[in-house]
Amino acid sequence: MAATPSSYSITMRLYTAPDHGVVGTVATGLAEAGGIVTAIDVAESSHDRLVVDVTCSASDEDHSKALVRVVRGIPGVEVHKVSDRTFLIHLGGKIEVSSKVPLKTRDDLSMAYTPGVGRVSMAIHENPEDVSRLTIKGNSVAVVTDGSAVLGLGNIGPGAALPVMEGKAALFKKFANIDAWPICLASQDTDEIVRAVEMIAPGFGGINLEDIAAPRCFEIEARLRESLDIPVFHDDQHGTAIVVLAALTNALRVVGKEIADIRIVVAGGGAAGSAITALLLAGGAKDVVVWDREGLLCSDNTELAAAKLDLARRTNPNLRRGGLQEGLEGADVFIGVSGPGVLKPEWISTMAEGSIVFALANPDPEVDPAEASKYAAVVASGRSDYPNQINNVLAFPGVFRGLLDARASEVTMDMLLRAAEAIAHVVTDDELHPSFIIPSVFHPDVPKAVAAAISGKPRD
Amino acid sequence: MAATPSSYSITMRLYTAPDHGVVGTVATGLAEAGGIVTAIDVAESSHDRLVVDVTCSASDEDHSKALVRVVRGIPGVEVHKVSDRTFLIHLGGKIEVSSKVPLKTRDDLSMAYTPGVGRVSMAIHENPEDVSRLTIKGNSVAVVTDGSAVLGLGNIGPGAALPVMEGKAALFKKFANIDAWPICLASQDTDEIVRAVEMIAPGFGGINLEDIAAPRCFEIEARLRESLDIPVFHDDQHGTAIVVLAALTNALRVVGKEIADIRIVVAGGGAAGSAITALLLAGGAKDVVVWDREGLLCSDNTELAAAKLDLARRTNPNLRRGGLQEGLEGADVFIGVSGPGVLKPEWISTMAEGSIVFALANPDPEVDPAEASKYAAVVASGRSDYPNQINNVLAFPGVFRGLLDARASEVTMDMLLRAAEAIAHVVTDDELHPSFIIPSVFHPDVPKAVAAAISGKPRD
Repeated sequence: MAATPSSYSITMRLYTAPDHGVVGTVATGLAEAGGIVTAIDVAESSHDRLVVDVTCSASDEDHSKALVRVVRGIPGVEVHKVSDRTFLIHLGGKIEVSSKVPLKTRDDLSMAYTPGVGRVSMAIHENPEDVSRLTIKGNSVAVVTDGSAVLGLGNIGPGAALPVMEGKAALFKKFANIDAWPICLASQDTDEIVRAVEMIAPGFGGINLEDIAAPRCFEIEARLRESLDIPVFHDDQHGTAIVVLAALTNALRVVGKEIADIRIVVAGGGAAGSAITALLLAGGAKDVVVWDREGLLCSDNTELAAAKLDLARRTNPNLRRGGLQEGLEGADVFIGVSGPGVLKPEWISTMAEGSIVFALANPDPEVDPAEASKYAAVVASGRSDYPNQINNVLAFPGVFRGLLDARASEVTMDMLLRAAEAIAHVVTDDELHPSFIIPSVFHPDVPKAVAAAISGKPRD
Repeated sequence: MAATPSSYSITMRLYTAPDHGVVGTVATGLAEAGGIVTAIDVAESSHDRLVVDVTCSASDEDHSKALVRVVRGIPGVEVHKVSDRTFLIHLGGKIEVSSKVPLKTRDDLSMAYTPGVGRVSMAIHENPEDVSRLTIKGNSVAVVTDGSAVLGLGNIGPGAALPVMEGKAALFKKFANIDAWPICLASQDTDEIVRAVEMIAPGFGGINLEDIAAPRCFEIEARLRESLDIPVFHDDQHGTAIVVLAALTNALRVVGKEIADIRIVVAGGGAAGSAITALLLAGGAKDVVVWDREGLLCSDNTELAAAKLDLARRTNPNLRRGGLQEGLEGADVFIGVSGPGVLKPEWISTMAEGSIVFALANPDPEVDPAEASKYAAVVASGRSDYPNQINNVLAFPGVFRGLLDARASEVTMDMLLRAAEAIAHVVTDDELHPSFIIPSVFHPDVPKAVAAAISGKPRD
């Protein structure tokens, strides 16, 4: 089992005999056990021992434990301490606040704080729209969660959600130079969440809702869009939808089909599935069928909950019934935002020629991408260890950059469509390939292209 | 009228004839009009003209306008543009969010964000107290306002308050390496403010209430102290009280009196006055009399509002009645946190020998410090252009540094007393002087001494 560089990276501090051959034995042992040694640092060397820090990637937690056991078994080596690099980088948090102004002299203080700041406050009091120009509001986003649906981890609460929101804030800075701050809320009551976000809105230029469970997230978003004068974006919905549509646009370029002509099965009718479906329909899809635990959602099923019935009414024009297997027969596209293993690889063979499979459940997809590739023309997943990773990082930084640049008061469906188009077109005709339908998150053009598409302003 | 370096600093871009003598004329003209030229930069020089940026301090807004008029009147000089330096430094806001972790490679991303962050979230979910160690909560403070009592500017609302809260956040970083974020609330309803702060509390290690009007601020603070497990500090109350007690401690060292033996008149029974009074009593004062618009507060005055009556019951043991003038006769100390000009200088002559006058109303004190100095042994004010500036920056950074270092869940009266003592003792016996009772805000020992006093941990 070979490890890809992953978040399961450990550093072992070893005490060994003063014999550099032992270090070689350690490296060999780790490599034979599937570990990837990325660094060996001798921290101390004396006549009676060496202190060596060995950093090594593992494929998962069990693997990292197995690697430690391997090293413990080598004669002459004592494992003094094992550090988990992921935990190390989290110590003290991942973001910080910095001052952009000098504060070295009394003169500096008198401009940045009292008494000078009073004149700036009065200027904003007299011309409230100046707040975006003269404060952080012009570049700030609140990353808001109630901790109810964090990654694939479920309802772990606001404190446990904080590292995720911090990570998101760090990505906002890295990819779009936006100053985002995590707001982890101590209630999962819809009314309280709405009111809390309304209360803090004066200091922010945009609201990024994150990891809030469905169906609560729909009402929260709708009410905030109504009441606030700054844009509200639910990344699990709209961010995912943008990147999925971008990837689908290019997958269809690969197989030579038009979105208006195809049948798409969306597995999962939650926050992501609903938003993907809405954007696909806005983007020209005519035949989208949503599958969830109730089976294929069908508008004549009166037992569906309100949100699902609403989804059913906008989809499945041919009133298809049955399970996922039935839904896939003859379909052109599968988009999974549901759970692990719900799609049997052989079912893909019943899909139309040139089938497209996006298995996006995290961390374990609806179908193993390698298995799916045996049947489908194009496969994408949420995983970084396969081609075609569908990653929201492609969308949200550029989306908010564009919204802030335009001083936008809302996010429109048209903006989302333009953002998807912009991401798709970063992949040139020459580059386009079944294994390259979506650019890397590190492609420098992506946030700029998305921002320009959102704001309507020309790219730098 | 000579200007001290102040927040009224302007930069004029001038177009002049290509004659460096003209620049000299400009500098002379400004100096004669009381301006202090701090920089002259020639931005462009060609055969037919010079482009010169002249930066100049003024004493106030009228003065800066007068200086521009002087330059406009100089033959051969065109004032192309006038920039206000205070507004320039506010463009785009004064703080920013930075990532403390590298985000350059997929490996970085997989540790700081998904999937690695999921393990950190689960660790916090399993051991909730780890949130302070593994996230920004261990070092973050919310600077919360409703914009109802901003500086001396009044009820200007949350947007106009934002520059002040940003400035405060910048000072938190500069003086105590704390990551503070401004939270400007869209309501001035007590219940809504309390609930909003409770809602956002999971992501912060402390709450700094700021510029919230009295008496609302008392209830908000009391309720939050009750419901939250992180410390709540109202800087306008407790920060001011700490610095006042520190200054008074040293002023009494100068005049050779003990706090238990003196009579103190506090002018102003609002947020600051109440907190100062409470800390003076906790610090050993026996005879404090509060004066407000109702006259000297006296416990037998049944017409007083609840908060004022409460204050009256804890003070004025000898039931003194009358106005400020009556209160001051024979008193040892005057502490003003009221309004401009309420104290006539000659009244000070009726105070006891070795009288102490703190005139802290901002921006215009209760009495001109220069006038007060003719009668009082020690004079302090909130102004930076006189000796003995009472400035909250001496207290709040170190207070929160200590609270965060100790992972404190509350602020106690004892902590406030220790903080005041710590600030006072930064001034050594050798340094102590009627014009030096309080250290400079830039004295590097102050935040460390305050933090150690609060946390009970030894200083670095």
